[in-house]
Amino acid sequence: MGKIMVIGCGGTGNAAIYQCCRHSEFFSEVVIADRDLSRCEALKKKLEGTTDAKIIPVQVDVDDTAVLTELIREEQPEAVLNLTPPCEDLLIMEACLAAGVHYIDTSAYEPEETAVFEYKWQWEYRDRFEKAGLTALLGCGADPGLTEVFCAYALKHYFDEINHIDIFECNTGENRHPFAAGVNPQTGLRRLSLGGAYWKDGSMIETEPLAISQKYRIPEIGERDMYLIRHEEPESLALHVPGIKRIRFFKSFSERDIAYLKCLEELGLTSIEPVRYEDQEIVPLEFLSTFLPDPSSLAAETRGKVSVGCLLEGKKDGKEKKLYLYSICDHEECYNRSGSQAAAYMSGLPAMIGTMLVMNGTWKKAGVFNVEEFDPDPFMELMNKWGLNWKVSENPRL
Amino acid sequence: MGKIMVIGCGGTGNAAIYQCCRHSEFFSEVVIADRDLSRCEALKKKLEGTTDAKIIPVQVDVDDTAVLTELIREEQPEAVLNLTPPCEDLLIMEACLAAGVHYIDTSAYEPEETAVFEYKWQWEYRDRFEKAGLTALLGCGADPGLTEVFCAYALKHYFDEINHIDIFECNTGENRHPFAAGVNPQTGLRRLSLGGAYWKDGSMIETEPLAISQKYRIPEIGERDMYLIRHEEPESLALHVPGIKRIRFFKSFSERDIAYLKCLEELGLTSIEPVRYEDQEIVPLEFLSTFLPDPSSLAAETRGKVSVGCLLEGKKDGKEKKLYLYSICDHEECYNRSGSQAAAYMSGLPAMIGTMLVMNGTWKKAGVFNVEEFDPDPFMELMNKWGLNWKVSENPRL
Repeated sequence: MGKIMVIGCGGTGNAAIYQCCRHSEFFSEVVIADRDLSRCEALKKKLEGTTDAKIIPVQVDVDDTAVLTELIREEQPEAVLNLTPPCEDLLIMEACLAAGVHYIDTSAYEPEETAVFEYKWQWEYRDRFEKAGLTALLGCGADPGLTEVFCAYALKHYFDEINHIDIFECNTGENRHPFAAGVNPQTGLRRLSLGGAYWKDGSMIETEPLAISQKYRIPEIGERDMYLIRHEEPESLALHVPGIKRIRFFKSFSERDIAYLKCLEELGLTSIEPVRYEDQEIVPLEFLSTFLPDPSSLAAETRGKVSVGCLLEGKKDGKEKKLYLYSICDHEECYNRSGSQAAAYMSGLPAMIGTMLVMNGTWKKAGVFNVEEFDPDPFMELMNKWGLNWKVSENPRL
Repeated sequence: MGKIMVIGCGGTGNAAIYQCCRHSEFFSEVVIADRDLSRCEALKKKLEGTTDAKIIPVQVDVDDTAVLTELIREEQPEAVLNLTPPCEDLLIMEACLAAGVHYIDTSAYEPEETAVFEYKWQWEYRDRFEKAGLTALLGCGADPGLTEVFCAYALKHYFDEINHIDIFECNTGENRHPFAAGVNPQTGLRRLSLGGAYWKDGSMIETEPLAISQKYRIPEIGERDMYLIRHEEPESLALHVPGIKRIRFFKSFSERDIAYLKCLEELGLTSIEPVRYEDQEIVPLEFLSTFLPDPSSLAAETRGKVSVGCLLEGKKDGKEKKLYLYSICDHEECYNRSGSQAAAYMSGLPAMIGTMLVMNGTWKKAGVFNVEEFDPDPFMELMNKWGLNWKVSENPRL
């Protein structure tokens, strides 16, 4: 019988809260907090009658740490699941420390004034979470999240050492609008403009945006152009995988996506540097974002699939070994099942599982941790049990 | 010995004023008027020492017709050459009427609140210009302008009747920026979003934006995708060409152009409907335009060509006849010669020639006229004489 507070009622928030409410035997009370109270109330209305969980909508502006801390103290959840944009991570960690509750999120901190995102700022909270006896679980969505659990699982059951990790996120979702089949288009665009990066032999190597790409055969989808982009996983996996030499993250983009991204980039519309327009300062990307609909608003018409997987090369008993571990979901099927499209579903369910494992003690440990630092088996078991099957391909030919 | 006032010191303005100054035996005084005085002064500085014309920079906001009329009365030019954005046409015609001077422009009127552009509003001034004994010459740039002179010339020398007119504007210019090798990208984008249109058997037929395209072999350039777009010429040519059945205008767009245009259109960034952003109303296209550099600022690095031509099918002495009349310029060569890239050059020189022909009496007639209503021979002669050679292809195979 646990009380959870979920902050952020967007696409992933809706998906995670739906999952918490499916398990009301564990999540008996679910506080839904958002800047926009109407989103929380709409979700409560949608879920009521389908769950025994008590749903408590509240309004909060997370920018005010004092107010947020007060809210958490009032509501007294055991944990806070942070599903807000990544620039809020540290504020919410501070509030959790002050209020004495565990913390879980799904993407690395990103200061507002740049688009650089790294775990390092959150890792600096290790001592404080340790001393407080609290757990902070970082990056527990689809990717990061599932991807690192896959790596930990493969390391535990299939490898002695892993030398190369290539992570693939392939979203073939389409609807009436460009850039509207993922989770948060604004964050995606911010991060793309930073350029690509991958980890090799101890260093992070930077690339021009979208400069490196290759065709891969994604299982159950087919051949796709996959582009190397900067992502969370290399920074933490580099510390936790024996024998690791290279970690890369690839994301699918269609030809149309690439042309559109280049258009916006070349025109300067994805810039986060303010420009002067008619006596006010406007950040181009923020203005552009008002033209990018929330993907969850188009969930009902989104068609295609999302696949998240890890291609692993390493050694077992002295012999070379290669493995592909992945999960794949269909947008329409996820929507019919849960009201969320596949990208949100595949972030929301792992977020709920991670939160449950923290709260039930399985993944509870004082300090700040990434997902791969815990035993992957309980997580993988719950994934299969609750609707996000994972698959192993022992002779992968991507 | 004539005095001209040019309003609008942008790309075409610079090109036209350069041409006026080359002919200081005719244009002895050139008033350059613009909202931004520094543009006028910069051009004066550039041209001084290269011309005997007296150059007079003045600042004016054309929105205030009374102020503009007063300025024209003070300066007393014989004619005003209007090279401002098309939404200013009527205001400037009013001011010319009030001050008693002739009027020339290079594109049809376009109300600010829509992107519809038509000569009809300007044609309504016919009586008033007639009674005042003044000439208004409409659309005397490259296209409209050259294109209609070509049609008039072909009708005079090659055809008894013309049944089909296809006009081709092909700009292969490239520089570091998209949409920056033409003349006025904002006007171009506004008009594109209106959708296409062509004239057939007495009616203007509308099409979806960029829906109709075909490959054509443009002489001295090669095969290009040409897209049917709405343009000025069909509206006036429909009234002045015996036997005319169909008039179409095609413009070249590269694959990249098309992808970028679709991106901006699909995202809603080319809309002229205001949106609410942080407590103010912003017109997306106007905000977008701040990211589109003035093509003349990139003139020095623009490479490629501009070709403007008319494919004509009709009859002569009872027999079928086909002809292609065109002009072609190279961006780099125009820049080296005149300081303007080819698109501005090919608008500016015709604008100067039309103005000269009005002022010297050759094309002076009380009322409001389109270019094809006058004798094309003097114009065509001056084009060849002054650096915009035209060519005839008698067996065109586009």
